Amino acid sequence: MSDKSKALVVFSGGQDSTTCLFWAKQQFDEVEAISFDYGQRHRLELEIAAKIAQKASVPLRILKLDMLGQITNNALTNPDLDVETDKPDNRPPNTLVEGRNMLFLTYAAIYAKSKEIHNLVTGVGQADYSGYPDCRDEFIRSLNQTLNLSMDYPYEIHTPLMWKNKEEIWQLSDELGVFDLVRTQTLTCYNGIVGDGCGHCPSCKLRKNGLNSYIAKRG
Amino acid sequence: MSDKSKALVVFSGGQDSTTCLFWAKQQFDEVEAISFDYGQRHRLELEIAAKIAQKASVPLRILKLDMLGQITNNALTNPDLDVETDKPDNRPPNTLVEGRNMLFLTYAAIYAKSKEIHNLVTGVGQADYSGYPDCRDEFIRSLNQTLNLSMDYPYEIHTPLMWKNKEEIWQLSDELGVFDLVRTQTLTCYNGIVGDGCGHCPSCKLRKNGLNSYIAKRG
Repeated sequence: MSDKSKALVVFSGGQDSTTCLFWAKQQFDEVEAISFDYGQRHRLELEIAAKIAQKASVPLRILKLDMLGQITNNALTNPDLDVETDKPDNRPPNTLVEGRNMLFLTYAAIYAKSKEIHNLVTGVGQADYSGYPDCRDEFIRSLNQTLNLSMDYPYEIHTPLMWKNKEEIWQLSDELGVFDLVRTQTLTCYNGIVGDGCGHCPSCKLRKNGLNSYIAKRG
Repeated sequence: MSDKSKALVVFSGGQDSTTCLFWAKQQFDEVEAISFDYGQRHRLELEIAAKIAQKASVPLRILKLDMLGQITNNALTNPDLDVETDKPDNRPPNTLVEGRNMLFLTYAAIYAKSKEIHNLVTGVGQADYSGYPDCRDEFIRSLNQTLNLSMDYPYEIHTPLMWKNKEEIWQLSDELGVFDLVRTQTLTCYNGIVGDGCGHCPSCKLRKNGLNSYIAKRG
């Protein structure tokens, strides 16, 4: 293993993974990023990711996973399904792509090992838990162990946002000096609008509420 | 969940997974199979798999994972690398495709959930352990737990061959009434020769030694 600490960030160009990217740059000597082209609703996501990675001077690899939409049905890869704006009571929202984080982190791990990187960084978190089972800490810890066994390699999955709510994620981006970049250049909105977004999809609501709280607190 | 017990077999058309396919047909009310087109050296594998699945009256789904060869370097997906015929001492053979079983079982699980199948069957085993970390029981049990957490679904991964050596796998196929089918129609050989194979690649040697032991014992 190299003397330098290296990390690979699973990167989508959204608020959370962009904050993680800059967090990783502060924590590790060398940082790379990986994005997935899985037929997501907004292809713009990948352009945004490339633009931010370039600004951060981080090499980005985009992997194409075009079969994911064939074996799972959800509003992110199926343009015929509308994104649910109200949170359903007894099941995850229809934006859930089954197994997505597990696949992304497994591919990231395979790629990381080929580059002798053992630190993986992901922006998942369970503080603003939205019914996605694969954002939970328990899952990530189990996955970490399974990956290590799978490839006999000492991976360490870092989840700097695991216990942070959106307000605290805004605060972290401010501490990292990228509050403005995150606010104006990331894409989180389900309707594909960069920055403050459409303001009414579930993702924008969460982001906006956190932003307002943080601004009120910061004064 | 349905009253009928259903299982999905990860299927390659080789000796081990073919034995598992018929084992599953004995154990479960309904059986389906899934194969992966990951740029493997012998495309014939997929034709063989389709032929055997049809004989077994089992619906087969083939999933294309063409990016696997892009992020890992091994003799199965890279035609420029020769298959090592001697077993290296300190590392797995160059036929190792990093993370393969983890990816295959994760895709199988995603597909299974979409069809309300919670039993997954795989032919991996550690009795004839060849240096592949992702064939070990410890890995499979960890993966089972991670999959359950990933998708909040009660998967059960079955590994009927985990503790069987090749002789015992031949015996099982005989007990299941498919000894001749497995012997003449499956593809295990790294040189792409169906049935008894080339006889000298690592895979053929293992298969032949087991077969000879079993025939000697059976008399």
